[in-house]
Amino acid sequence: MSKVKTLDTLFHDTLKDIYFAEKKILVALPKMAKAAQSDELRAAFEKHEAETEGQVERLEQVFAAIDAKPQGKTCDAIMGIIEEGKEIMEKYEGSPALDAGLLAAAQAVEHYEISRYGTLAAWAEKLGMTDAAKLLKQTLAEEEKTDKTLTGLAETAINEMAEAAE
Amino acid sequence: MSKVKTLDTLFHDTLKDIYFAEKKILVALPKMAKAAQSDELRAAFEKHEAETEGQVERLEQVFAAIDAKPQGKTCDAIMGIIEEGKEIMEKYEGSPALDAGLLAAAQAVEHYEISRYGTLAAWAEKLGMTDAAKLLKQTLAEEEKTDKTLTGLAETAINEMAEAAE
Repeated sequence: MSKVKTLDTLFHDTLKDIYFAEKKILVALPKMAKAAQSDELRAAFEKHEAETEGQVERLEQVFAAIDAKPQGKTCDAIMGIIEEGKEIMEKYEGSPALDAGLLAAAQAVEHYEISRYGTLAAWAEKLGMTDAAKLLKQTLAEEEKTDKTLTGLAETAINEMAEAAE
Repeated sequence: MSKVKTLDTLFHDTLKDIYFAEKKILVALPKMAKAAQSDELRAAFEKHEAETEGQVERLEQVFAAIDAKPQGKTCDAIMGIIEEGKEIMEKYEGSPALDAGLLAAAQAVEHYEISRYGTLAAWAEKLGMTDAAKLLKQTLAEEEKTDKTLTGLAETAINEMAEAAE
């Protein structure tokens, strides 16, 4: 039985994994925005929430391209990553280091997505799914851009902490 | 109490997180090497295992730099990521897609590490810990190089699958 599981099955499984992950991220982002201390970070989380909605829609188009119903599959990785974000929010509430911690958590999320979309885009190309590959690459580019934005915000956040401590 | 938690505490917490993660990765890599179908992938996992041992030693040097005992702290993220790798090994055992799946799992691990080491290196610099920042950047560069190697192997793995299917 397992012998027949080939790349198209793996593609479908991984699509379900990232679909589940994006939905969880959509729930986590408003909480992170609410917790953020700086206006810039809150705005970045809100912007990324809107972007994530578009990414979910793109995934639904990819499901349609393989004639499958959009469906999630428990993604232990994102649940672990988001759990760590929650711990940061609880442990560093009211601390000057909160935003730095939230940014680190958000970058762990972005990197998970970057690895998944990179993989899925490569597989879609190999499977001859040109349109799906294009959609997945669009999202990949957005996630990479978000990660760079977060790196910039992290620099600002730790500089402001250092100034506040002076 | 929480008000006093600043960047040095967050740095120490995150150091414990990645130390725990590296130890878990050291346990997972030989299993992934054993499961790998291609000699190239097995060799890559074995090489990365040796490299990971060096990375653990570097982390121990960073702990020493902050006068702390090397200590791990449960990292839910890596546990979730590794759990997904295990599922791939079980579900795709004997399938031509196994190596592609193992590679995707390994790249998710690498990206988690890239996000953590990127964050830790930036914080170490801000905290004026020049030597620690240097060690963390060394590992960051290694992880980025490993991720690129895995991308190349993934390309080969899916090409070979396609050829075998013809």
